[in-house]
Amino acid sequence: MSEDAGSVVTAVERLYAGEPADAPGGAGGERFFLDDLTVGQRFVSATREISKARIMSFASEFDPQPFHLNEDLAQASFFKGLAASGWHTAALTMRLLVDGGLPLAGGLIGAGLEMEWPRPTRPGDMLHVESEIVAISPSKSRPDRGIVTARGETRNHRNEVVQIMTVKLVVMRKS
Amino acid sequence: MSEDAGSVVTAVERLYAGEPADAPGGAGGERFFLDDLTVGQRFVSATREISKARIMSFASEFDPQPFHLNEDLAQASFFKGLAASGWHTAALTMRLLVDGGLPLAGGLIGAGLEMEWPRPTRPGDMLHVESEIVAISPSKSRPDRGIVTARGETRNHRNEVVQIMTVKLVVMRKS
Repeated sequence: MSEDAGSVVTAVERLYAGEPADAPGGAGGERFFLDDLTVGQRFVSATREISKARIMSFASEFDPQPFHLNEDLAQASFFKGLAASGWHTAALTMRLLVDGGLPLAGGLIGAGLEMEWPRPTRPGDMLHVESEIVAISPSKSRPDRGIVTARGETRNHRNEVVQIMTVKLVVMRKS
Repeated sequence: MSEDAGSVVTAVERLYAGEPADAPGGAGGERFFLDDLTVGQRFVSATREISKARIMSFASEFDPQPFHLNEDLAQASFFKGLAASGWHTAALTMRLLVDGGLPLAGGLIGAGLEMEWPRPTRPGDMLHVESEIVAISPSKSRPDRGIVTARGETRNHRNEVVQIMTVKLVVMRKS
C-alpha cells in the first residue's frame, strides 16, 4: 500500500472512530459533525484556476460541444466565447469543497441537489466557493445522522457567481 | 486546423444555419428544434461503461474522498464498496446525452437542474440514459428560443436508476 493510501486509511479510521478527519489533500483544519453546525454558518474555500487546456480536455471526454472545444466556434455561439462545461465547473467546485471548503466530519455525501449556472466559466477564471448552512434535519429513523442543506456559490476572481448549488448532504452525529 | 476541429466547424455551421447538426462524435441522427418536441416524447441514449480506473482517476482530480479512491476503505464506508463520484456519473450522463441521447438541434445548454443519486455507480457498470420531455415553454421575450424541461434517468445494466436529473434546457426554434 502506498504512503498516499496509508494516509487515507488513517483519515478514514479516525472518521469512523468519530474523530475529526483531515480532508484527503486538504488543509487539515477543524471538521464539523451535525451537532457542530448551525443555520447561517458560512465557509469559504480555497481558490483554484480553471485552465483553457483543461476546459477543452474535460469537454472532449464528457461534453464535446463546439462552444467548449474551440475558441472561434465558441465566439459565434450562445456563449460568445470559450466556456467551461457546467459539469467541469461543478466538478471543480466539488474539489474545492472536499479540500476544506465545506469541512464535514463524515465527508461530503450528496443525497440530492439543485444547481444553476447564471454565467459561463471562462479560461483562466480563479474560482472559489462560498457556502452557507441553510437547514439541519436530524434523521428520525437513523439517530446517528441527519441531512444538512447547504447553499454554495461558486465565484470567479471578479466575484461574479458562475454556479449556485443547493445540496442536501448526509452528515453524521457525534456519538 | 485539425480534421477533428474541421468536423466540429461543419457541425456548428449547419447548426447556426438552422439545419440539423450531428452530435460531435455522435451517431448523426435527426436533431430536434423546439417546434419538433412534444411533452411525453422519449429518447434513449447509447451505453457506456464506467471503469474502476477512471472512477479512481476522476475522483483523485475532482472528488478525492476515500470511498471513491480505495476499495478496502470504500468497503468500510457509507457506500459499502467502491463508488463513482456523483459528479463522474453526471459527467458521463452528459456525454451520453451529447452523443445523441438527447438530440437537440442547438446542442445541450442547461439553465438549471435538479439531481439525485438514488444508488451508487459501481466499477464496470454499463450506463445509459432514458429521457422524457416534461415541459415546453416558448420564451416570451426571445421569440427564437424556449425552455424545455427534460427528465433523465441514468440506469445501470441491471436497469437500476443511479441518477435522476430534471434539467431546463435552452432550445432554439426553427426560423
